[in-house]
Amino acid sequence: MSVKTIEWRERQLVLLDQRVLPNTIHYITCTNSKEVAEAISNMVVRGAPAIGIAAAYGMAMAVRNNEDLQLASQQLAQSRPTAVNLFWALERVQDYIQADEGNLIEALEQLAIEIHQEDAMLCDAIAKHGADAIMAEPSNQSVTIYTHCNTGALATGGVGTALGVIHELYNRQSIKQVFAGETRPWLQGARLTAFELNQHNIPFQLVCDSAAAHTMKTKSIDWLIVGADRIAANGDTANKIGTFQLALIAKQLGVKVMVAAPTTTIDFSIKTGAAIEIEQRSAKEVSQLNGQSISIDDCPAFNPAFDITPQDLIDVIVTEKGVFKPADLLQSY
Amino acid sequence: MSVKTIEWRERQLVLLDQRVLPNTIHYITCTNSKEVAEAISNMVVRGAPAIGIAAAYGMAMAVRNNEDLQLASQQLAQSRPTAVNLFWALERVQDYIQADEGNLIEALEQLAIEIHQEDAMLCDAIAKHGADAIMAEPSNQSVTIYTHCNTGALATGGVGTALGVIHELYNRQSIKQVFAGETRPWLQGARLTAFELNQHNIPFQLVCDSAAAHTMKTKSIDWLIVGADRIAANGDTANKIGTFQLALIAKQLGVKVMVAAPTTTIDFSIKTGAAIEIEQRSAKEVSQLNGQSISIDDCPAFNPAFDITPQDLIDVIVTEKGVFKPADLLQSY
Repeated sequence: MSVKTIEWRERQLVLLDQRVLPNTIHYITCTNSKEVAEAISNMVVRGAPAIGIAAAYGMAMAVRNNEDLQLASQQLAQSRPTAVNLFWALERVQDYIQADEGNLIEALEQLAIEIHQEDAMLCDAIAKHGADAIMAEPSNQSVTIYTHCNTGALATGGVGTALGVIHELYNRQSIKQVFAGETRPWLQGARLTAFELNQHNIPFQLVCDSAAAHTMKTKSIDWLIVGADRIAANGDTANKIGTFQLALIAKQLGVKVMVAAPTTTIDFSIKTGAAIEIEQRSAKEVSQLNGQSISIDDCPAFNPAFDITPQDLIDVIVTEKGVFKPADLLQSY
Repeated sequence: MSVKTIEWRERQLVLLDQRVLPNTIHYITCTNSKEVAEAISNMVVRGAPAIGIAAAYGMAMAVRNNEDLQLASQQLAQSRPTAVNLFWALERVQDYIQADEGNLIEALEQLAIEIHQEDAMLCDAIAKHGADAIMAEPSNQSVTIYTHCNTGALATGGVGTALGVIHELYNRQSIKQVFAGETRPWLQGARLTAFELNQHNIPFQLVCDSAAAHTMKTKSIDWLIVGADRIAANGDTANKIGTFQLALIAKQLGVKVMVAAPTTTIDFSIKTGAAIEIEQRSAKEVSQLNGQSISIDDCPAFNPAFDITPQDLIDVIVTEKGVFKPADLLQSY
């Protein structure tokens, strides 16, 4: 990537403003935890792994700024409720603070950098395992993939999760074509995934979310590959709104379904997806686009940001540790 | 409606420009068949019944203007390939021309007016049959409906097809809530259906197409009601892109599926939906929105305007003649 999603520079957090991509490259600098919480909440930075990383840097700045650490952690935790990576990162920081060994300022900065760098390695391992799983079938040496939302370098600290797998398949010359769903209301597919696929010269076509079933039926899609925001112990997966129906459609049309995510996305504390809070966002995200109204004034709208894909619709969950059937996840870990 | 979708005024065709609704009320006046063909192709006027009506007026002007009637009919037929009402109207006009009785100028104008007025009556009958079918079940006295695209007064010569059924249910005080899918890429749901539902004070919420399955699962949707652009003899139904996946999702989630359309939408000359041509439209409709880019420059996109819902996913097809199981359609007519 010629642009950096998250950069730690002179003890400040520089975030690529993903709200205005791909037509504007704009960076936002956060100097305290509150600004980071706002950046997460406003979707300057998004993607489950990326918001975990941003939160860790937020806590590092909170310590350096001598902020109220309890409040800082709370504000970051409340910035978005669904993705568990955020809570995982905050807990890791809290554990460190409680252990309290020597210079906390330097230590938390190092911890955040470590979380950031680790995520890049997790992405590489996920990409390899995912590509291996697909190519294990002799008929899958050249595949057509459908993906949703953005799960690439813009969503993580590395090459991505689902998009990392696609990238790895492309490096192995095994991608025939990618179809990227535009992913309303935020258009992460149209704005971010199209941008990344184009940068890597991976052959793709953008499609409206409404065209998913027709595309899967008429374009010989082999796999649906998506990321995750939180995976329950039974394999039920919370991910960007639209994922549930894509998996339902895929199952009916004989398309295989892969969820690609680091272990930090698995929440073994909850048994099923029913326990996952679904973030509800503003009606305006549906009735407006780039500040322009695309409906009547004050249009009532239902705008869930995520949905739950039941584990029986998922063929495999790929983490940095390998490839798992959803039902085997708990016992395998 | 305070605005008129299609108006025949002083021998000219005045069309409400549906591309700029709901924020701008703008009319376009057509004075010859070529202008009508362009208005259909550019989606100034859309909706299967409405484009049939517009084409009939186009032929009436062609005769009065002494245009090449063969060419005029051809241009109108080529304006959009999927909806059969267009071809039905042109054939009805051709039959009239071949019979050639007396003053063709006056006669074709009368024929177009007749087709227009007839459609309003067809809508009323469809609305009544559809509402009767739903309320026939004792548990369905107050229902929650999901609908797609726009099938109301803006798409027809009357109260609408699927939206006509919803309107009739509302008049009978049997609507709990309507969920309207925004219907990318043209946003007919966000721009047109929201506008009509709001005008009639029918309680509704707009949803992104990506939220359909989550909405059906969590909001106790009773029926999915959609219109049609062409129905094959076996009941396979071409309709706005997204309908196929909505029906697939509905079937999996126990939501009943109704297709509402006049008999003029049924094409008994084709056995199944496989014979229906799917209109492919410009990639720009996907990568732009209201003329604004929402992706990378020259983004490749796959943009089918319609899809085919197989008859086994449809519970009932409602026409002005009554309520039919798809498999019984041919023998019932």
